[in-house]
Amino acid sequence: MKVAIISGSKSDENIIYEAKKTLEEFDIEYKVYIASAHRSPEYVKEIVQKVNSEFDCIIAIAGLSAALPGFVASYSILPVVGVPVDSEMFGLDALLSITQMPKGVPVASMGIGKKGAHNAALFIARMFANQDETLKQKLLEYIKKEEENIRKINEEL
Amino acid sequence: MKVAIISGSKSDENIIYEAKKTLEEFDIEYKVYIASAHRSPEYVKEIVQKVNSEFDCIIAIAGLSAALPGFVASYSILPVVGVPVDSEMFGLDALLSITQMPKGVPVASMGIGKKGAHNAALFIARMFANQDETLKQKLLEYIKKEEENIRKINEEL
Amino acid sequence: MKVAIISGSKSDENIIYEAKKTLEEFDIEYKVYIASAHRSPEYVKEIVQKVNSEFDCIIAIAGLSAALPGFVASYSILPVVGVPVDSEMFGLDALLSITQMPKGVPVASMGIGKKGAHNAALFIARMFANQDETLKQKLLEYIKKEEENIRKINEEL
Amino acid sequence: MKVAIISGSKSDENIIYEAKKTLEEFDIEYKVYIASAHRSPEYVKEIVQKVNSEFDCIIAIAGLSAALPGFVASYSILPVVGVPVDSEMFGLDALLSITQMPKGVPVASMGIGKKGAHNAALFIARMFANQDETLKQKLLEYIKKEEENIRKINEEL
Amino acid sequence: MKVAIISGSKSDENIIYEAKKTLEEFDIEYKVYIASAHRSPEYVKEIVQKVNSEFDCIIAIAGLSAALPGFVASYSILPVVGVPVDSEMFGLDALLSITQMPKGVPVASMGIGKKGAHNAALFIARMFANQDETLKQKLLEYIKKEEENIRKINEEL
Amino acid sequence: MKVAIISGSKSDENIIYEAKKTLEEFDIEYKVYIASAHRSPEYVKEIVQKVNSEFDCIIAIAGLSAALPGFVASYSILPVVGVPVDSEMFGLDALLSITQMPKGVPVASMGIGKKGAHNAALFIARMFANQDETLKQKLLEYIKKEEENIRKINEEL
Amino acid sequence: MKVAIISGSKSDENIIYEAKKTLEEFDIEYKVYIASAHRSPEYVKEIVQKVNSEFDCIIAIAGLSAALPGFVASYSILPVVGVPVDSEMFGLDALLSITQMPKGVPVASMGIGKKGAHNAALFIARMFANQDETLKQKLLEYIKKEEENIRKINEEL
Amino acid sequence: MKVAIISGSKSDENIIYEAKKTLEEFDIEYKVYIASAHRSPEYVKEIVQKVNSEFDCIIAIAGLSAALPGFVASYSILPVVGVPVDSEMFGLDALLSITQMPKGVPVASMGIGKKGAHNAALFIARMFANQDETLKQKLLEYIKKEEENIRKINEEL
Repeated sequence: MKVAIISGSKSDENIIYEAKKTLEEFDIEYKVYIASAHRSPEYVKEIVQKVNSEFDCIIAIAGLSAALPGFVASYSILPVVGVPVDSEMFGLDALLSITQMPKGVPVASMGIGKKGAHNAALFIARMFANQDETLKQKLLEYIKKEEENIRKINEEL
Repeated sequence: MKVAIISGSKSDENIIYEAKKTLEEFDIEYKVYIASAHRSPEYVKEIVQKVNSEFDCIIAIAGLSAALPGFVASYSILPVVGVPVDSEMFGLDALLSITQMPKGVPVASMGIGKKGAHNAALFIARMFANQDETLKQKLLEYIKKEEENIRKINEEL
Repeated sequence: MKVAIISGSKSDENIIYEAKKTLEEFDIEYKVYIASAHRSPEYVKEIVQKVNSEFDCIIAIAGLSAALPGFVASYSILPVVGVPVDSEMFGLDALLSITQMPKGVPVASMGIGKKGAHNAALFIARMFANQDETLKQKLLEYIKKEEENIRKINEEL
Repeated sequence: MKVAIISGSKSDENIIYEAKKTLEEFDIEYKVYIASAHRSPEYVKEIVQKVNSEFDCIIAIAGLSAALPGFVASYSILPVVGVPVDSEMFGLDALLSITQMPKGVPVASMGIGKKGAHNAALFIARMFANQDETLKQKLLEYIKKEEENIRKINEEL
Repeated sequence: MKVAIISGSKSDENIIYEAKKTLEEFDIEYKVYIASAHRSPEYVKEIVQKVNSEFDCIIAIAGLSAALPGFVASYSILPVVGVPVDSEMFGLDALLSITQMPKGVPVASMGIGKKGAHNAALFIARMFANQDETLKQKLLEYIKKEEENIRKINEEL
Repeated sequence: MKVAIISGSKSDENIIYEAKKTLEEFDIEYKVYIASAHRSPEYVKEIVQKVNSEFDCIIAIAGLSAALPGFVASYSILPVVGVPVDSEMFGLDALLSITQMPKGVPVASMGIGKKGAHNAALFIARMFANQDETLKQKLLEYIKKEEENIRKINEEL
Repeated sequence: MKVAIISGSKSDENIIYEAKKTLEEFDIEYKVYIASAHRSPEYVKEIVQKVNSEFDCIIAIAGLSAALPGFVASYSILPVVGVPVDSEMFGLDALLSITQMPKGVPVASMGIGKKGAHNAALFIARMFANQDETLKQKLLEYIKKEEENIRKINEEL
Repeated sequence: MKVAIISGSKSDENIIYEAKKTLEEFDIEYKVYIASAHRSPEYVKEIVQKVNSEFDCIIAIAGLSAALPGFVASYSILPVVGVPVDSEMFGLDALLSITQMPKGVPVASMGIGKKGAHNAALFIARMFANQDETLKQKLLEYIKKEEENIRKINEEL
């Protein structure tokens, strides 16, 4: 099981990092591509065509008029998870560009920025867990640990 | 492979219908539940616990302060796809409630309303297609037909 | 009379502090809990169940898709006062998540951030003052002092 | 225990009705006043002064630049619950005017419109339930019935 | 001189009509295509490649996550004029998707809806007028008539 | 001719300063008051009653749920010019609170922040200029100088 | 004392009517002009130049990118009162275009639509009342009647 | 072929610079003017009248209530490209003022800020390329280089 992370700009490194780190925690294989739907559409298409045969799903990260997730979803039947970046307008432009897809081309949007990238990886772990008992256990542990951490914070209050 | 559709209110029938119809087109089994995260949290929990062992993913439909998708995602490690409903404020309240999930609990948001429900079903078809060649073919056909329809419209212009 | 302050994240310390300080000024007993509706729902439930029998009202502080106040209100019949935190989008996401509750589950929202936390404590002082003459006097003094301070500022202008 | 409902305009009758009906369901006494903070400030003051000695809390309903709840809260130490009306701008103007109160004058905002008025009454029932076992039982029943209704809907699906 | 009008959906007929009518008034040749960037990207590409060699500029009309104008601009060096459609959210989603293009791929956005489509045609008339004295005269007359109409309205007041 | 500047908070000093400086440039007499509509309503009333008999118009500066300009306008028949302050939400809350006054109580809103305070003073100079030839000359000069400055900038480009 | 009402479009008749009716109630002389800043700038200039010598202030009514009030204020030193029209985007576009004037050119904005037009007339009555005792009495009566009406509504409740 | 860049304020230097630099890359002649539609309307008119006979198109840069692009378009039949500046409100005020032009006066809006200024220049290069083979080649190269750069980034990942 492999994830392709495609990001619209190298400047979103810290967002990409969040997705990578989380996928690694779940031992999910990934590869990162930087490619802009607007400035390199043919290259995105090449990447997507390669991804279509070698990967199982796609994380697409983009800001502003964030066309990348929708563009990628148009050329693939893999599940595409979009992460809006807060480049301007506190991310509202990217959020609307990613969520308001027309009927027929699904993109699954996460929240804006780092937390969205982290959750994109988690969401994918959930998708893969259906066929992977180890992953399932890891997710259950992740959830358990989250709660334990919060319980601990309260003991120390 | 089975999908649980959980909707926060019976009044969202036309949104639910859109998801059902599309899942049927792809021969994906589903079951519909009406349950409000705010007005029947324990019942939602019961549903989610049942869903966790019998279903493969969840579509959660909600308007206003749309807590349902996030609530469901908290009690499950299944992938949760959220559909914001345009009950008030042209759906902006529901869109932000569904997308802006904190780090750790992923919800995959579709667009607002009917188109979002249709795309939720399509997204799930894409998820399942990884292990289902028939579904894969259907998705490829769906995409092909979409394009053919558009080409036909132009011939008739 | 006792207030439970439940905050969705330890990072909202300065918001929590504002509520604590104000409650102390009015000699209102309180206890602080850190618990996330999304990352530790069962723990929130435990807290709320304890709070239900030992406390008289709840302040719930949360940012982003701020489900905590509504979640708490679902499991309690105590009055719940919500404080939206400005984590992103200048707090608009949290404000809408907290205010736009469906019919049947009331959450009383204060303004965004520190001033909201201060006012949450004041609002609770007003609630308790119905049965507490000392508190009533303190509130009247608070109001009087606020006005006096403003009058003094003008004398010094 | 008595509630004063003050509404900024007679045209908000259907919003007022929602609050009245819900208070009646909980056998909570109330009296309705129509008074505009902007067009009849002295009259509002008169009402508030009377309310201060005879009532236990206030519901203030207003649209547009909704100053009424804050105005009322300035002249009272009773808890004030605000209901923003969707007169224009899908209620965003009223919501911000009611929630964004400065430090020192608390107003508890409900959601926009009818659901907000219903919840204002529920919130007040919760406030009074601390000293009223019958009310407490009614609230528990209300919550129970809400859930039962939802369960029934599912049986009939 | 020829204009290609590409619209994302047949349902935008009345918007397309506005552009057509105005181009006809200025005797500017055009051809209409219906093609969705998301549902028929390859067909859009085919159209754009044909347009690139036979047309002088492009009007791209789209709603929601309005990727069409940007997509078209990526595959062409012709000037692309975008018209956001008010499908949902009073057109804000389409407006931001069309205007917030990244550095490197220019799209010229008009206002939302019919007036935007009319102005798209006028803008193109201005572009072509540089090399076309007749068009220049027509534009000057258009402007003159606009003013005369307004003057006449006042005489009749 | 005299202007009363009433500001809701001492922290808006730099906004107040902008109004003062501009009034001084036009030799318009003024007096500054700090008084909060919410925290010192009676004091605002006292000020307004005094202002009503001794001043000719009022500048009211406020942020957040900016009730001050409307409150002042309720107790006066002097022209009230409001200046929204960018305390939070980039001033949108204050702008809507000041502009969206109900039918019957006029407040004239300037833009957000410093520029708004400067323009408030200019607007008042225009009001007074009807009866003051010197002021009229100063305004004409101001406008002339503005243009000259801009012309000079271009000479130096 | 005379008011010039300049409206950007004949389609705003019902907004214009509200201003006219209110001015008539206060026996304030006025004249209505229809002229668009964008479609007939020279005609607006002519009107403003005439208005400058014969009138005492200006009401400018406009929707969308509402440049008219600012344009008029640029060519006049009379006080200009702007009324944003809700043509699209619930009037947000017009409200921001009218309020966010740069430092140096003051426009006094009223609220959106009819209520704004009514208040524009009232604001002007307040401006003129400084030099007109009859007008002053009428304004005091207006305010008194507003309050009386509200008191009467309550007696009939 | 010559471009007039008109900017509403000298403080937008870094935005102007972006347009200049890009026009220079394409060997397009330009001249910069600083002139405010609101503070120097007659000077803008003078500039536009000169520009009308000597230039081929106009870039108009403005923030806040950004009237400049529309004002310029009213006095010209040249194509006008507007660039909204993020002076306040993250540029939303300027974006709406520039895009929401009424039917009859076209302004072509780019995105907010620097990227918008860059794209304004690119858009103009596209307009001129119709009659200029060298420019056409440069645009094709620009697009090619953009894609090559992105491909290189990936090789280095």
